[in-house]
Amino acid sequence: MNDLDPASSPARPAPAPPFAKRTTRLRSSAIRDLLKLTASSDILSLAGGLPAPDSFPVAELRREADRLLGEFGARSVQYSTTDGVVELRSWIADHAAAATGRSIDAAQVLVTHGSQQGLDLIAKVMLDPGDVVVVEAPSYLGAIQALELFEPTFVSITGDRHGLDTRELADRLAGGLRPKLVYVVANFHNPTGATLADERRRELAELADRYGFLVVEDDPYGAIRFAGSPIPPVLAHSERVVHLSTFSKIVAPGFRVGWAIGPPEVMAMLARAKQAADLHTSTFAQLLLANVVDRPGWLEEQQRRIVPIYRDRCVALCDAIDAVLGEQVAYHRPDGGMFVWLAFAGGALGEGGAPALLSAALEHGMAFVPGTAFEAGDTVGRFHHHARLSYATCTPAQLVDAVDRLAAALAEIG
Amino acid sequence: MNDLDPASSPARPAPAPPFAKRTTRLRSSAIRDLLKLTASSDILSLAGGLPAPDSFPVAELRREADRLLGEFGARSVQYSTTDGVVELRSWIADHAAAATGRSIDAAQVLVTHGSQQGLDLIAKVMLDPGDVVVVEAPSYLGAIQALELFEPTFVSITGDRHGLDTRELADRLAGGLRPKLVYVVANFHNPTGATLADERRRELAELADRYGFLVVEDDPYGAIRFAGSPIPPVLAHSERVVHLSTFSKIVAPGFRVGWAIGPPEVMAMLARAKQAADLHTSTFAQLLLANVVDRPGWLEEQQRRIVPIYRDRCVALCDAIDAVLGEQVAYHRPDGGMFVWLAFAGGALGEGGAPALLSAALEHGMAFVPGTAFEAGDTVGRFHHHARLSYATCTPAQLVDAVDRLAAALAEIG
Repeated sequence: MNDLDPASSPARPAPAPPFAKRTTRLRSSAIRDLLKLTASSDILSLAGGLPAPDSFPVAELRREADRLLGEFGARSVQYSTTDGVVELRSWIADHAAAATGRSIDAAQVLVTHGSQQGLDLIAKVMLDPGDVVVVEAPSYLGAIQALELFEPTFVSITGDRHGLDTRELADRLAGGLRPKLVYVVANFHNPTGATLADERRRELAELADRYGFLVVEDDPYGAIRFAGSPIPPVLAHSERVVHLSTFSKIVAPGFRVGWAIGPPEVMAMLARAKQAADLHTSTFAQLLLANVVDRPGWLEEQQRRIVPIYRDRCVALCDAIDAVLGEQVAYHRPDGGMFVWLAFAGGALGEGGAPALLSAALEHGMAFVPGTAFEAGDTVGRFHHHARLSYATCTPAQLVDAVDRLAAALAEIG
Repeated sequence: MNDLDPASSPARPAPAPPFAKRTTRLRSSAIRDLLKLTASSDILSLAGGLPAPDSFPVAELRREADRLLGEFGARSVQYSTTDGVVELRSWIADHAAAATGRSIDAAQVLVTHGSQQGLDLIAKVMLDPGDVVVVEAPSYLGAIQALELFEPTFVSITGDRHGLDTRELADRLAGGLRPKLVYVVANFHNPTGATLADERRRELAELADRYGFLVVEDDPYGAIRFAGSPIPPVLAHSERVVHLSTFSKIVAPGFRVGWAIGPPEVMAMLARAKQAADLHTSTFAQLLLANVVDRPGWLEEQQRRIVPIYRDRCVALCDAIDAVLGEQVAYHRPDGGMFVWLAFAGGALGEGGAPALLSAALEHGMAFVPGTAFEAGDTVGRFHHHARLSYATCTPAQLVDAVDRLAAALAEIG
């Protein structure tokens, strides 16, 4: 979930060549181009979703990489199965069983090239052009990008501080809406930071069973919880859920290893699509991660190490917002994850909205992502006065500085 | 290019769930199911395309992995750019410039998750349902699998021992055929082992320029040449070529790192599709491979080390075929790569053809891939009496033994 980080942006413009598809849904983003400016300068970027580098267990990875190549040798760099190496799939299945309280078989697990690939594979095997996909408003940009290549019709349902409004969804379903997929980020939503409430998770699962759609539950941030108690995932309540997650935040993103868990007949289709897409995920990366995470107590210890990093940064950012921006913004403090979602008070940003604020903020050496980046086709304009701020990458002191710079930019355009 | 290796096969059957796409092109393969039997037994498998494990530079990878995590630390496992890390893209561009005699800019290079992903991305941005894709008859199964998910119309052109018959293609084009893509494996074809002749490469490039199609030149095996001289790729002769290759055979496949080189406007589209598909390829794997291959003279030294392994195996297999099968088969000795393609003499296999021979061969403890696995939709039945034998994974002694077993099976069903 690196979406708008400038580091992840293709560097070149894309005039469609004559032999391209008739309908190309590849987004060209003015905002992305703007944010690219932040990559090579001393701008304090609250735009990206890069995990804190000091959270990566580098010494441990180094030791395990050495052991793996020493002990496993050629096997660790040979081709392996499309589903994933059994050591890692077993760990994932056990981990999911503990979180859901349900029995999860390793055969229900597909290792993917980051959780982003899970979205691509699901779209590829599920979506015919025009099929309805329900997303939250606002929604994770990377999901919209992955899904829209397959030309669905997006229908947005309000997401508030308790996540997707399942009452609104139920009403729409009762009114005849028939989605094929409903996409949610249940824990510490990107961009809103919201956590889907337990009763809403149960209601969403019931609706999936009643109306026959598939829930895609994207959970990259669940392990970074610094307030409240874990809530069982939607996966705990229905067979009609594909749950996506990743090692990007609890270990490190640069290995590109994530996973999908779901009903066997769906997983078999995803595995065949994965085989056609890239044969399998890196054998070496899978074995390395399995060796790291499979040690008893390791995950808990890692969480104790990294969660305070994110908590302290979140507190620093939110305290600075309260002190400096005050009544000019409405927002809620997240219980975990990486993002704070600001709604600017009416008129505070003028006509130009958040994109204009970004331009001014860049002049002051600070970057964020305007809310417009998180709009699906049917919500254009709805988040013109919103902003996503990530506290993942900057230190607390930098975050305080960044909010001062943002306030200066705001004073200028207001 | 692991296509039919049993290790890469999804393990579960795939009844389409009610929420799947209306038209699903995910192949369910009886042959694959049969070959799965070879994974867990002492069968001599000439079915897979696994590179020889003794060709992997394990000690070097171990040293470089340790150095990378020690010196680069967190950066080596952080998110990175969709295009690929600059160190690796520069090496790839220089390597391609040397092979083509043309200037290749790093901006024309996209690092992919194995060369298989290149096929998936090209199909995703290029193919509307019904678009014509020209493939060779026979053709690499993995390419057909990747492309057919996007519902093209396959048109097969004969591939002989000098590769795609460009005269036949020219005639079809003159007759009105208008493909969007032409897919070729120019060096040591899978399954035929053929090398596309220099004059055919030039003619293919001219046809692409004249008729406006894109050539997809897949080159996973080019570095494994043990006879004859290297021939400039099709990429050397036209701007309308996307060239795909991989580190799977010259270093090791388990990192899943390949690349695509092509015209800037196509590469920009592929990069956007890659971002939606999986954000980027493993930072760690890219930096590791860049550190290994970028040392002056390393590639040449590695080729001197691994090419004889494949040459000796190829000779052992072909000599055994000549000695034991004699006039019952027609084939040609490849100049490199991993595969020998046998055409059984009329009647030698009876009605059951190569699939029946495979069943008998498995009883005798030997496996290969029947030619039927390499048929596109318009060539069904054409390779019923053919077989692909890989000499990549077995030792010379095992290959001799395997041919004896194959002969015993042949005697039984003939």
